[in-house]
Amino acid sequence: MIYLDNSATTHPHPEVLNSFQKVADQYYANPSSVHSFGSEAERLLDRSRKQAAQILNVAPQEVIFTSGGTEGNNMAVKGIALQHQSRGKHLITTQIEHPSVMEAFRALETLGFDVTYINVDRNGKVNPDDIKNAIRPDTILVSVMSVNNEVGTIQPVRQIGQFLRSYPKVFFHVDHVQGLGKVDLSIKEWGIDLCTLSGHKIHGLKGTGALIKQPHVTLFPLLHGGSQESEVRAGTENLPGTVAFVKALRLLNEDLEQKVAHLAEMRQVLWKGLEERASYMINSPEDGAPHILNFSIPKYKPEVVIHALGEEGIFISTKSACSSKQPDVSAVLKACHLDYERTTSALRVSLSTLNEMDEIHTFLRKLDQTVENLKATMG
Amino acid sequence: MIYLDNSATTHPHPEVLNSFQKVADQYYANPSSVHSFGSEAERLLDRSRKQAAQILNVAPQEVIFTSGGTEGNNMAVKGIALQHQSRGKHLITTQIEHPSVMEAFRALETLGFDVTYINVDRNGKVNPDDIKNAIRPDTILVSVMSVNNEVGTIQPVRQIGQFLRSYPKVFFHVDHVQGLGKVDLSIKEWGIDLCTLSGHKIHGLKGTGALIKQPHVTLFPLLHGGSQESEVRAGTENLPGTVAFVKALRLLNEDLEQKVAHLAEMRQVLWKGLEERASYMINSPEDGAPHILNFSIPKYKPEVVIHALGEEGIFISTKSACSSKQPDVSAVLKACHLDYERTTSALRVSLSTLNEMDEIHTFLRKLDQTVENLKATMG
Repeated sequence: MIYLDNSATTHPHPEVLNSFQKVADQYYANPSSVHSFGSEAERLLDRSRKQAAQILNVAPQEVIFTSGGTEGNNMAVKGIALQHQSRGKHLITTQIEHPSVMEAFRALETLGFDVTYINVDRNGKVNPDDIKNAIRPDTILVSVMSVNNEVGTIQPVRQIGQFLRSYPKVFFHVDHVQGLGKVDLSIKEWGIDLCTLSGHKIHGLKGTGALIKQPHVTLFPLLHGGSQESEVRAGTENLPGTVAFVKALRLLNEDLEQKVAHLAEMRQVLWKGLEERASYMINSPEDGAPHILNFSIPKYKPEVVIHALGEEGIFISTKSACSSKQPDVSAVLKACHLDYERTTSALRVSLSTLNEMDEIHTFLRKLDQTVENLKATMG
Repeated sequence: MIYLDNSATTHPHPEVLNSFQKVADQYYANPSSVHSFGSEAERLLDRSRKQAAQILNVAPQEVIFTSGGTEGNNMAVKGIALQHQSRGKHLITTQIEHPSVMEAFRALETLGFDVTYINVDRNGKVNPDDIKNAIRPDTILVSVMSVNNEVGTIQPVRQIGQFLRSYPKVFFHVDHVQGLGKVDLSIKEWGIDLCTLSGHKIHGLKGTGALIKQPHVTLFPLLHGGSQESEVRAGTENLPGTVAFVKALRLLNEDLEQKVAHLAEMRQVLWKGLEERASYMINSPEDGAPHILNFSIPKYKPEVVIHALGEEGIFISTKSACSSKQPDVSAVLKACHLDYERTTSALRVSLSTLNEMDEIHTFLRKLDQTVENLKATMG
């Protein structure tokens, strides 16, 4: 099997699974229980929080463990909107955010909020000046992803955070689900108030993740109840999941530079291979994230290509998994000003550090064969 | 170790852990991915949903997998309120709901909703007539738990559901987190529109659960994004967690009657043992759920008793874990009209089918010793 759909999800690392198993079996007490068995679980939770904080260069109390990226994004966007609506009901985001951000904004529109969706250029990049110009006295939130999940565009998060320092009443949220371990990001130095992370995109487990929240930021919780997670995310702590998430973070952090270089090298070979063939049109920006390459094979239905490759044991995707059950046109590629033919024939290869260069060569060869075969079938 | 804090959380069953491990490692694809590896995961998800539906006697599409009880409760309560507020902003619940229901209602009050908190009697029981009398033309939701988590009161859910059939515009939510596998409940026959379940209270895993939603019920989702879970709960499906949850449900369902009888027998012995001693005052109703027994030892701080028992390897709790970090008075016992001395000295024993009668006898003996020792220390 050649698995090249790592932006949809990744294979959990064996050590991550081991950690989960051990904690679920041995430290099963409720961390909120007052007895010593509960305190043991609580200490393990505290230790995990400290480890995550150290890796992310934030304070432990800034780490809020969640059930994943969708929860983190909804918690940030809706949490700011509902908590600070008395100050203003204007929100700013981009046209190519992940559905868990985009649909949260659409939902807020139905509750009376006003949302500006900033345009992107051909490469999917947002212009910080466009965001600046959209800010109004009643703006309370700007939300921009670090790396786009379909094409891999790296957004100018640093610059946006920089000028937003002059707008202390506007909160800044970054969806870093696709960026974690792939591109640079400094929550503190870049002025990021809220940052969403997910476990299952970094060889961790589904149902795990974190929202990083700066201490001055107050949120209307999605989940009210017990006083867990500094009272912004109630519910019995999923300690095994949390330990597993932090283990994935720690493993990711080992030799990170080499890992990113390895990804970039594979993407470069893939890029050149696709570029050489006239029938493939690359949709990703050349300076995009090192793990995502989106391209179109005009006139070929992506599902057909994917199924044919699947028969060879090669797995790639169309759009993002979260919007793949929607029909046809990629909203992200459309926002990038690509024509109908390209927006309806896009394929995404997404890499993990576990992929090998051999697999890239095999993929390119099998892709050619597949397209040849399909051409023959189509007559 | 004698673990008697099963209403806080339970030890995951080894088969549950095995299922999780296997699925996480072998079926790691995103169920929303269009390739065959994704379809395999999707089929497994569908199969789990069908199995859960069969056990719960509902239709598969009525099962919405969640991250646990707190999410299910928030999703039901806030989901109804935000979705149907144009029809009315009045909500009804009881004074002794779990914090994840109670605090969701308090939060809705800050958003302009009007909530009636119905009184309970000495046994924690709500009178269906009181709910009936509280209904107004603008009432959109009634939320009542099946079993109270602190004292074990079984609420008259069936009767409430019955008369609510005459109010088709009022949705009925039941928090069944403590009741699952302990007391009878029929979602369909009792007219329950929304029913919250949790995995980690039934020897499943933390971070897993389900909300059962009748087809005519529309909710404002907590988590917007992809179209997973019939578009009411976005986010990459936690397939390993879901399979593990359904495994726990299936295991629970095996010889269920014997299990409940075993729990009731242990509780009966415990009841008699506590009743015999003048210094213990039982707070639970005699006809309560078979797994919870709440009692007070007036003048003894519960934390002190719990820590002393903990040193003997026996684990019980004070209030619910979700409110145990709050100071002193149990709001539930106070609502049950108990005096200050009793509301501040309450202990909860909560049983699982894995407990043995021996453990109950040992507990009673050790409790006596502990109290004797503390009396001696206190001079």
